[in-house]
Amino acid sequence: MAFSERVTRLKSSLIREILAAAQRPEVMSFAGGLPAEAMLPALNWDDMPLNIGQYGMSEGEPQLRELLAAEARALGVPCQASQVLVVSGSQQTLDLAAKLYIDKGTQILLEGPTYLAALQIFQLFGADCLTVQLEADGPNLAALRANLERHRPAFIYLIPTFQNPSAVRYSEAKREAVAALLDEFGVTLIEDEPYRELTFDGGSAKPIVGRLKKASWIYTGTVSKTLLPGLRVGYLIASPDLFPHLLKLKQSADLHTNRVGQWQAMQWIGSEKYQRHLVELRSFYRQRRDAFQAALKCHFADLADWQVPQGGLFFWLTLKQPLDTRTLLAQALEQNVAFMPGEPFFSEPDQHHGSLRLNFSHIDPARLDEGLKRLAAVVRQAQHAQAA
Amino acid sequence: MAFSERVTRLKSSLIREILAAAQRPEVMSFAGGLPAEAMLPALNWDDMPLNIGQYGMSEGEPQLRELLAAEARALGVPCQASQVLVVSGSQQTLDLAAKLYIDKGTQILLEGPTYLAALQIFQLFGADCLTVQLEADGPNLAALRANLERHRPAFIYLIPTFQNPSAVRYSEAKREAVAALLDEFGVTLIEDEPYRELTFDGGSAKPIVGRLKKASWIYTGTVSKTLLPGLRVGYLIASPDLFPHLLKLKQSADLHTNRVGQWQAMQWIGSEKYQRHLVELRSFYRQRRDAFQAALKCHFADLADWQVPQGGLFFWLTLKQPLDTRTLLAQALEQNVAFMPGEPFFSEPDQHHGSLRLNFSHIDPARLDEGLKRLAAVVRQAQHAQAA
Repeated sequence: MAFSERVTRLKSSLIREILAAAQRPEVMSFAGGLPAEAMLPALNWDDMPLNIGQYGMSEGEPQLRELLAAEARALGVPCQASQVLVVSGSQQTLDLAAKLYIDKGTQILLEGPTYLAALQIFQLFGADCLTVQLEADGPNLAALRANLERHRPAFIYLIPTFQNPSAVRYSEAKREAVAALLDEFGVTLIEDEPYRELTFDGGSAKPIVGRLKKASWIYTGTVSKTLLPGLRVGYLIASPDLFPHLLKLKQSADLHTNRVGQWQAMQWIGSEKYQRHLVELRSFYRQRRDAFQAALKCHFADLADWQVPQGGLFFWLTLKQPLDTRTLLAQALEQNVAFMPGEPFFSEPDQHHGSLRLNFSHIDPARLDEGLKRLAAVVRQAQHAQAA
Repeated sequence: MAFSERVTRLKSSLIREILAAAQRPEVMSFAGGLPAEAMLPALNWDDMPLNIGQYGMSEGEPQLRELLAAEARALGVPCQASQVLVVSGSQQTLDLAAKLYIDKGTQILLEGPTYLAALQIFQLFGADCLTVQLEADGPNLAALRANLERHRPAFIYLIPTFQNPSAVRYSEAKREAVAALLDEFGVTLIEDEPYRELTFDGGSAKPIVGRLKKASWIYTGTVSKTLLPGLRVGYLIASPDLFPHLLKLKQSADLHTNRVGQWQAMQWIGSEKYQRHLVELRSFYRQRRDAFQAALKCHFADLADWQVPQGGLFFWLTLKQPLDTRTLLAQALEQNVAFMPGEPFFSEPDQHHGSLRLNFSHIDPARLDEGLKRLAAVVRQAQHAQAA
């Protein structure tokens, strides 16, 4: 058996195992990042033309590309439809970016913590992952400058709006400062924004890519958090120097994104129906967020610190007494509770003990309190055991 | 700009350029491999459950995996549903296989000619592509043995049933012999069968993977040629030693295949409705194949040799006076005719001048004769010029 060297870096996916365990109906799961089933919109297929079933263009449906470009321009991202590539969920953007940039040992720069599945695919391709520490309003700027001075990362990967897992939203000032630094050092920005529309408390900060003057960039989004993840329709928008390469990589990966899902996305993006749906979605998740915050205060006030997320799908808890939260999993699952340990969201997990990512969008409200109570008991027990 | 080393191998896609040119409505195109629009079945979405829109399993829909495993077992492929991975079109199987096996310089073995997009992605990952010559009934067995004795290819990639581009269907004897050789040398087989159901003259030969006793294998298929390519639903079935790796690679590539397309595929695979559709499809394409053969005889009898394809979507012509058919493209397009030069289907294109791949499924029958007449004139003119 002679596999590629790459396969030695193919980790057993902790997430897969947790999510598999969380499938059992008796499990109260805070582990995934699933939309609430109640908010999945019904689909109407009546007007879909028959020839949507034919092969399509690798770039994506022309009308969808126009709609996505118009949305991005409204957010201050200077772009044309010709820069939009429809992808099979924004996870695919990470695959294409990894192919475009990463050889074994290529240095890249990530937030700490960062999106687990991004870390996994970048490491699979052999990246040397450098970390810039995330603060409540964005990255530590001194650490960012130091990294850019010391290294020449092929790109920096950022999730500036309601980050997964930390829920951090970058301030206006940090967005400006990050853009200026990337321009100064000529480092490509990959900006991942799946959660932009899931904003609960108002306020808005435009993407960083629209603030760049020189650096190359890829901006990526999805309909998975606002419409239906099962469609597997995401998109990337890239600076013109990168687009032709990404297009060829897309073609070699899967020819083109499924057209029935693209057609559905076209029926929503930019429509009044979509705006109404987003208003409902924000209101629904805001209530879930608030209920979660109330239950957390009740069960975790003495155990952990956290910020109330202003958007997105997650609470990020930092334990007052750090311990390796991966060791809590087995006990939690015994209690029929699932959560996501914080360590795997860092490229050096063993240096970052003591955080938990808790999803608030998908748990049955009737079981929320019981779930958090049990999880708190597991944490408390482990801390007593550690202290003993 | 620091791209990966891989990107230096990202070729400007001749296919993309030809297909783009063939989009002009006045062009009579023999270039693509599109199903006939008239045979795209209408879709009924009435019974699709709402929660198909939720995230799904990386493996694919359980019911679809069961249906595909049952189909494969009926073809003599010993497998369980647990070995089936639903992919975003069978092109994605090639991406996953490349990730699993290919480092820079990894030797792999391919048919000559072989599927262009497979060659491209294997080369993108840095493969050293060895070729075994294809004869009318399958590979040259002496050449295959010599390659296996001399080299240790990571895998062999074969399209044994109505190959793209050559339309070759391996004989029973060659299937048995290939399986025995791969077992003897312990070389993994990737068997690609998009065209199996498009059989026009009866006869059937079961897959090679079902004849293996020891070697690892990946078998891949798709609904793109029988139902709708726009769904982007394909599948792979792998020996149990390979499956876990392929599953993790699938998850990192795009999480899972779109579920609306999977749901549609589930409504057809294994049903009587699907069997009736396949009967109609074969009859429709048989007529197109026969009309094409008649027109070819009229215009190309003095210019080229070819076998009448017993299935699939292509005629493969070998010019009696070889010339680099890529040089014919510009003149053909000037005459509003598009075709696929044969050279790019070989890993050493310059050693294989003089073949053309002509698609017979998609051309408007009313324009078939005029298209072939113009193409023959372009060939004739080039041969006169070469002789002069």
